[in-house]
Amino acid sequence: MTSQRPIPTLQDVATRAGVSTATVSRAINFPDQVAQVTRDKVNAAIAELGYSPNFGARAMAARRTNTIGAIIPTMENAIFARGLQAFQEELRSNGYTMLVASTAYQPDTEEEQIRSLVARGADALLLIGYHRDPAIYDFLDAQDVPVLLTWAFDPAATRPSVGFNNSAAMQEMAEKVIGMGHRRLALISAETAQNDRASARCDGIRQAMTAAGLDADTLCFVETKYGIEEGAAAFDEVMTHDPSPTAVFCGNDVLAVGALRRARERGIAVPGDVSIIGFDDIELAQVVYPALTTVHVPHREMGRKAGQALVKHLRDGTALEPIEVHTKLVLRNTLGPP
Amino acid sequence: MTSQRPIPTLQDVATRAGVSTATVSRAINFPDQVAQVTRDKVNAAIAELGYSPNFGARAMAARRTNTIGAIIPTMENAIFARGLQAFQEELRSNGYTMLVASTAYQPDTEEEQIRSLVARGADALLLIGYHRDPAIYDFLDAQDVPVLLTWAFDPAATRPSVGFNNSAAMQEMAEKVIGMGHRRLALISAETAQNDRASARCDGIRQAMTAAGLDADTLCFVETKYGIEEGAAAFDEVMTHDPSPTAVFCGNDVLAVGALRRARERGIAVPGDVSIIGFDDIELAQVVYPALTTVHVPHREMGRKAGQALVKHLRDGTALEPIEVHTKLVLRNTLGPP
Repeated sequence: MTSQRPIPTLQDVATRAGVSTATVSRAINFPDQVAQVTRDKVNAAIAELGYSPNFGARAMAARRTNTIGAIIPTMENAIFARGLQAFQEELRSNGYTMLVASTAYQPDTEEEQIRSLVARGADALLLIGYHRDPAIYDFLDAQDVPVLLTWAFDPAATRPSVGFNNSAAMQEMAEKVIGMGHRRLALISAETAQNDRASARCDGIRQAMTAAGLDADTLCFVETKYGIEEGAAAFDEVMTHDPSPTAVFCGNDVLAVGALRRARERGIAVPGDVSIIGFDDIELAQVVYPALTTVHVPHREMGRKAGQALVKHLRDGTALEPIEVHTKLVLRNTLGPP
Repeated sequence: MTSQRPIPTLQDVATRAGVSTATVSRAINFPDQVAQVTRDKVNAAIAELGYSPNFGARAMAARRTNTIGAIIPTMENAIFARGLQAFQEELRSNGYTMLVASTAYQPDTEEEQIRSLVARGADALLLIGYHRDPAIYDFLDAQDVPVLLTWAFDPAATRPSVGFNNSAAMQEMAEKVIGMGHRRLALISAETAQNDRASARCDGIRQAMTAAGLDADTLCFVETKYGIEEGAAAFDEVMTHDPSPTAVFCGNDVLAVGALRRARERGIAVPGDVSIIGFDDIELAQVVYPALTTVHVPHREMGRKAGQALVKHLRDGTALEPIEVHTKLVLRNTLGPP
């Protein structure tokens, strides 16, 4: 697989294209800033010579690769996709490329991917949530790789994040549901052990219950893996609880859509017999029938602000500060009185 | 941003962990092949020393980074997510990391991302569809970076792909629809200019029409951007056609879900007044109401086979050969007689 001819240099490309090396560099890294005719000449020279920007040399010279890594738990079902798309648009308009890795919710995989992205010269990382092995943060600090967290915001946290308060968001929804008269509550949750967003959402419901004089231990709590099928199976499980719940919270819209489908299959009326509540407000929430009552997360705003913060940090050295974005309740058709 | 202490070497890590440098290397690159206790020692040493595998040196020594890049048109709505998840699982079990970039269906963005991934030392690339500037293929050939195409299979193509025949798949569905008596057909398509899958699906319908003695030019054809809202707006457009269609094909399930939602909003019965047909069979197709009739693409099988082929190619030098996977019709509840 090794090419036998000498490796072409940036200077070779510049000479062939009849432009300066700075122009070649800009054409590669910030093509939007270079006239089309110049880009065409440079790209033709690159193709003819088989030139590839020498990552190692560039990284050593500049300690920058204009690449930012984002590591998310899953690419399926669009939970993270919309925010990441806005993050990428912001990066791209500033000359950065985003590379994404997905962990399938496995902390070991996330750790490998962090090391891999750092080894490949990522200028910075975007990670989801706060909770991970402290050794990972030590590693990133030692490597001088800035890390911005997102999808979570905890005023007490020491690491900067651009996110929302998962606990307060779910608490607000639970107060609404309890205020309508619901007393027998259930939660179908993502697995909480490695997921600080899921555990915070659970805490939010329990706090609302306590504040309303309900015993938080009566919350019927079922953990399951992420997926529509899993949400459906968990719905069966919570409905066998005695007494059965009148309102079923779900830790995310994907689980809620599974619950909704299973209710229809079982002839259980929503919200007549039971209310079902989601979290995220992904597109799925609007296309299911009845349309899902859920907590709207401003994914695009969050992604855009995260991108802006990282770009300013890398460009100008502006410190990464915590930024909170705000959720809101979206009352559609799956929540009614008990 | 530059760390002031001397950069630790692989040997430093090995000495600190009390293992050989080969073991450190394996623990970093193929963690699954190393005992947990050894990994823990190595990882502790890496964290304490702040060691990062020196990409440049490794790349020059081995010309391999154990990273495979995948570039997809979009991360939203899970069209590509399931296949990519299977692709990643296959890679990961063989010690490779997958990095993903998404283009928002912009060829210029894809080209930048290809150059970026090659510059960062990707061992191989997975790209969607055949159609792109020939200069990109020339560049990849000159760089000796293997490229496998997917999501499309054309027996006449010269580049190897693991995919399905988009034209034949849609033709089979169109034959079914025409066989039920539909004569006035419409297609809401993704933009075909830069998307060979979308144009092949359109061709499939036209071929079925011609074979059934219908004039293919009577196909009411509307192109739109990718999205649920876009599908809804396009549905309005095709329904104003005179005479209005009795069956509306959609180039993908996302557009079909938008069409279905708009039909409900307008009080148009599906399939009583009009049939709506999707393509892909993503999870969305099963959760909408009525459940969507669509063409099932074996996304997981396709991703897994693509991963296997690339790993065998990189490990053993096995040539990349075309592999066809097969779609099938999924008849749910949105297709009925005219």
